[in-house]
Amino acid sequence: MFFASDNAGPMHPSVREALIAADTGHAVPYGDDAIMAEVRSTLREIFEAPEAAIYLVATGTAANALTLATLTQPWQTVFCTPLAHIQNDECHAPEFYTGGAKLTLVGEDDKMTPEQLRGAIDGWTRGDVHTSQRGPVALTQVTEMGRIYTLDELRAVTSVAAEHGLPCFMDGARFTNALLALDCTPAEMTWKAGIDALSFGGTKNGCAGVEAVIFFDPAHAWEFELRRKRGAHLFSKHRYLSAQMQGYLQNDAWREAARTANANAAYLAQGLRDVTGAVFLAEPQANMIFATLPRRTHQRLRAAGAVYALWGPLDGAPEESVKMRLVCDWSIGRDQIDRFIEIAKG
Amino acid sequence: MFFASDNAGPMHPSVREALIAADTGHAVPYGDDAIMAEVRSTLREIFEAPEAAIYLVATGTAANALTLATLTQPWQTVFCTPLAHIQNDECHAPEFYTGGAKLTLVGEDDKMTPEQLRGAIDGWTRGDVHTSQRGPVALTQVTEMGRIYTLDELRAVTSVAAEHGLPCFMDGARFTNALLALDCTPAEMTWKAGIDALSFGGTKNGCAGVEAVIFFDPAHAWEFELRRKRGAHLFSKHRYLSAQMQGYLQNDAWREAARTANANAAYLAQGLRDVTGAVFLAEPQANMIFATLPRRTHQRLRAAGAVYALWGPLDGAPEESVKMRLVCDWSIGRDQIDRFIEIAKG
Amino acid sequence: MFFASDNAGPMHPSVREALIAADTGHAVPYGDDAIMAEVRSTLREIFEAPEAAIYLVATGTAANALTLATLTQPWQTVFCTPLAHIQNDECHAPEFYTGGAKLTLVGEDDKMTPEQLRGAIDGWTRGDVHTSQRGPVALTQVTEMGRIYTLDELRAVTSVAAEHGLPCFMDGARFTNALLALDCTPAEMTWKAGIDALSFGGTKNGCAGVEAVIFFDPAHAWEFELRRKRGAHLFSKHRYLSAQMQGYLQNDAWREAARTANANAAYLAQGLRDVTGAVFLAEPQANMIFATLPRRTHQRLRAAGAVYALWGPLDGAPEESVKMRLVCDWSIGRDQIDRFIEIAKG
Amino acid sequence: MFFASDNAGPMHPSVREALIAADTGHAVPYGDDAIMAEVRSTLREIFEAPEAAIYLVATGTAANALTLATLTQPWQTVFCTPLAHIQNDECHAPEFYTGGAKLTLVGEDDKMTPEQLRGAIDGWTRGDVHTSQRGPVALTQVTEMGRIYTLDELRAVTSVAAEHGLPCFMDGARFTNALLALDCTPAEMTWKAGIDALSFGGTKNGCAGVEAVIFFDPAHAWEFELRRKRGAHLFSKHRYLSAQMQGYLQNDAWREAARTANANAAYLAQGLRDVTGAVFLAEPQANMIFATLPRRTHQRLRAAGAVYALWGPLDGAPEESVKMRLVCDWSIGRDQIDRFIEIAKG
Repeated sequence: MFFASDNAGPMHPSVREALIAADTGHAVPYGDDAIMAEVRSTLREIFEAPEAAIYLVATGTAANALTLATLTQPWQTVFCTPLAHIQNDECHAPEFYTGGAKLTLVGEDDKMTPEQLRGAIDGWTRGDVHTSQRGPVALTQVTEMGRIYTLDELRAVTSVAAEHGLPCFMDGARFTNALLALDCTPAEMTWKAGIDALSFGGTKNGCAGVEAVIFFDPAHAWEFELRRKRGAHLFSKHRYLSAQMQGYLQNDAWREAARTANANAAYLAQGLRDVTGAVFLAEPQANMIFATLPRRTHQRLRAAGAVYALWGPLDGAPEESVKMRLVCDWSIGRDQIDRFIEIAKG
Repeated sequence: MFFASDNAGPMHPSVREALIAADTGHAVPYGDDAIMAEVRSTLREIFEAPEAAIYLVATGTAANALTLATLTQPWQTVFCTPLAHIQNDECHAPEFYTGGAKLTLVGEDDKMTPEQLRGAIDGWTRGDVHTSQRGPVALTQVTEMGRIYTLDELRAVTSVAAEHGLPCFMDGARFTNALLALDCTPAEMTWKAGIDALSFGGTKNGCAGVEAVIFFDPAHAWEFELRRKRGAHLFSKHRYLSAQMQGYLQNDAWREAARTANANAAYLAQGLRDVTGAVFLAEPQANMIFATLPRRTHQRLRAAGAVYALWGPLDGAPEESVKMRLVCDWSIGRDQIDRFIEIAKG
Repeated sequence: MFFASDNAGPMHPSVREALIAADTGHAVPYGDDAIMAEVRSTLREIFEAPEAAIYLVATGTAANALTLATLTQPWQTVFCTPLAHIQNDECHAPEFYTGGAKLTLVGEDDKMTPEQLRGAIDGWTRGDVHTSQRGPVALTQVTEMGRIYTLDELRAVTSVAAEHGLPCFMDGARFTNALLALDCTPAEMTWKAGIDALSFGGTKNGCAGVEAVIFFDPAHAWEFELRRKRGAHLFSKHRYLSAQMQGYLQNDAWREAARTANANAAYLAQGLRDVTGAVFLAEPQANMIFATLPRRTHQRLRAAGAVYALWGPLDGAPEESVKMRLVCDWSIGRDQIDRFIEIAKG
Repeated sequence: MFFASDNAGPMHPSVREALIAADTGHAVPYGDDAIMAEVRSTLREIFEAPEAAIYLVATGTAANALTLATLTQPWQTVFCTPLAHIQNDECHAPEFYTGGAKLTLVGEDDKMTPEQLRGAIDGWTRGDVHTSQRGPVALTQVTEMGRIYTLDELRAVTSVAAEHGLPCFMDGARFTNALLALDCTPAEMTWKAGIDALSFGGTKNGCAGVEAVIFFDPAHAWEFELRRKRGAHLFSKHRYLSAQMQGYLQNDAWREAARTANANAAYLAQGLRDVTGAVFLAEPQANMIFATLPRRTHQRLRAAGAVYALWGPLDGAPEESVKMRLVCDWSIGRDQIDRFIEIAKG
């Protein structure tokens, strides 16, 4: 009963098979392997972006930090939400890679509205050398609270950025989970909605460790390549990144895995609705559920071996409720979910 | 006929098997997986270093730069040779991760002598705030020219560092190739010889992408962990690093692979001795050969599909000789070597 | 009628005289001049801190950023208020000098309470490698809104920091203005109140450009010296910094200048109380006044040549009021204040 | 008898007078003062560069490091000599401000030839992401050994840079000393000779602490302004920098001071020719002399209170000679030089 994160499951069979298939003979190193050429071509097709510059790195933090650094001057501020992964979970990788840029927190949780963004941008209004200079807007899709920006919401936010000439970055660690929830095309959720650069997640959705970085404007390509190498993120045996992404994109595996993960979460949410005292903190939209459960329920679940993250401190009286985050990946079996609900019901 | 590098071959069967075996169910992320505990324990045994702090990263540059950064203040200089990988092949990753440390070049090629090191250290003699402050000494073993420091040579160099209170770092991208050539224990080639921290290479010797970082003094552990995360080098699905290293260390695979690679190079070198005009630039000691061949021989080899790196520019008259680097990994077959020699002989 | 800032007036006569007196013959460079020895000794006496490490730099931002960098690891966060100078007015100098530390904003304006600080510290509670690590607490005294922490308030805040083992830094750009308002000793307002390091301002109170950095624990001395040189803030002709500080401290000039500045502000505030429509945003405590005035009054003042900063955007209907900041330095004459009030009264 | 450096003398009367004259009333801060406008205009005339972007900072290291950072990407290397101030005397300020650029050492001492520069540039020939990327060429004029590039030499070096599209920076800490030695115009020694950006020294030639930065191409202006503020080098009471430079440029004071300094050094050199055992290490061309003297002579001089820097370690037998650097500024009196020679003669 592993609901702690979608960063801990096995490889999707399609990914594993591609990885094994690639493991033969010698391959040109450092990203010039034949599989990478195929991956690049496939992603350009998927995103309807024939000019896009596309790269692979092994971690989501690397994808985020290197891409932001390419878009941000050291004296600029990135606009993101207070719950953004880049703010809370990357140990200053964005600050490190940008050379000291600042993160300005917009809104109060995991999503920003156009009004909030406009207010934050206006907060750095002076434009003199003393203040932060305005930099890119960073959105997470699926958000850190499991919510999703609709296409209208995305466009509304990015158009505020565009008014000020600021680029927009999307942290798409759970990109495909959002894509399926919105039932739109990758282009619609990115460049057609004003996104300039994207971390396209693989690791949380069936890969071992690979994320694609996509710049819809290839002007940033060479700088990114230098930053990737300088950051020690360029793999010599790059084919093992390429092959993962190849397997991920083959046979619709990426969509199939996200579809399963989302369905698993919906199934779990459905079950939770019948659990006494369960309250959703946000309406589940993809593969993450934030909910409060009675402490006794929590204790039963933990005793039975269920693994999940608590949201906030665990203190107070035993009758109090506990906030938790429950994440479903594609690999969690329905039997695990059934068992979880059964125990939760008591 | 792939002799371009040992960074392009397939996984050793033991590595691949461990990787596949690990690919089941959920595993605790970020290095707390059970396989990592086993790997840590195994490496401590192998190195006779029960207190050592041990970490895995995916690239050699990450291992080098993060480890050096942990040992070096931004106002200090690292002492290394002019041919060091950290100087020539890492796009300023050491400067980036250290926050602006300098590399002072010692000696004239790939190895430094104690006298050269002493001279370089004395070059920063003033000790005031204006100059570089003295920092760690970085040695590569096997060197970038395929040579090996004997244990006596190692101890002679590190004792100069010790006189000045400077730590010693070993870039062991080809650690095991050197170990077998010297026929000593890992402890003898490291902490018993004055080495404080080590990049223990896996990628070039049968892994897909994994290097261990070993601090023989665990005082640096927490800082390294923060630096690794900040550098975006902490894997969520860390088991895929752990499993590679597990497979590498199992069944003596690491030694067996290096033994094969070294033997392949010796076999190739033996063959080259009968090639007209072949001259070795350095006596091959591990799995790399630096040699000059007549340009016509080079042209025949390239035409036949042989892949290798040239050393220096390729210009001049057709009768001139060409400097080349020939690297053998464990996976290159003897038939490939035979064919190479046959073509070289013309 | 210059009320724009206290960063624009002339040198206090005592400072100018010391500067001119020092301008003869050759003096040992880089801080080893005889005047610096005297300054160091005087400041140690004034602060009752015989062991303190004391340095001079030419700008307040240098004093703040270098001192914070000495106290902060790159993966730590500084705790400061949203209106702090280090957050708003230093173009990322703190981020630059610390190598990418984060500023966590505490409270809602220019002062933090112990409860707010405790909440902010608890916000980084996880303590794993993913989040910001907790770092120093930075307070400004006089605050950016012209307010003052009482000794009790200071101790209450610093004791929360001490509970968590975090050092406390005071940005004392207007240190002496606060000191006189509190009528306490320098020791009471600093190390006796839990402050570990201080920017002791000179520039805003009668110097041309000099700030002292004081570490009450000299353990940081050598690192600071290296950081100062690396930051290009070590003066060769250091005597011209030393002499300013010498003149500032001589004959009680520092106190006399701040006393005059505070009295000027009190006099201005008194006058404003009789101006129709004048409202104080914060009760003036030192030498700065934040007030709103009717827009027509503002227009009359500007037309008459009064210079001051607006606080927030200037838009809206003509009958609306305007927020302004009025700063008095020691050099502004009473006649200027009288004239300002006269015009304001209409 | 102060020959230790030209960084320790008093202000030239013209500088002091301008400083005192400026010290009245309030002046607009941060470089918008009226004197700065005049200084900018004067320097543009002097350099025949009506479009040049011109800034003031307080230290030579700030001028060098901020200007280099504006010209250099973090993954590029600066080309400079092994004796360059930026390599030896700035505690990694160039590495810090550039975010980790490397310094590649060209030649063997204080001057580089076109051939040496071409060789060094060719040393980074690969152009792939692994190596340093080529960056600006940095020349010092007067060099650190007191020598001067002729205009032909300058043009020969900068034209090699231009072939590769690399910008050229001149560290002109002793710019005017060189200018007078060459008897050319400032334009001829800078932009007409291929120099793109310049540190125009004031401190070593009669100012208290001010250097101008001149970009002959104003495209870099805004970035420099942000870097200057971020580096904490923007003065609030900027008029005290402006006034120094104003006084320096007025009444030909800058040329007069350098003329005196050079003449003092020539006079000293002339005297040394009659001292037994004196040997020049380089032919004195401006205001610095590098010479060896017998150790006994050195001992006599030191005993008599002469102050100068030794060049290299002081060890060996008493009959051995000692290398020393003797610097004359404009303020050292002829009587001091006479006395020095008298004592040296024994």
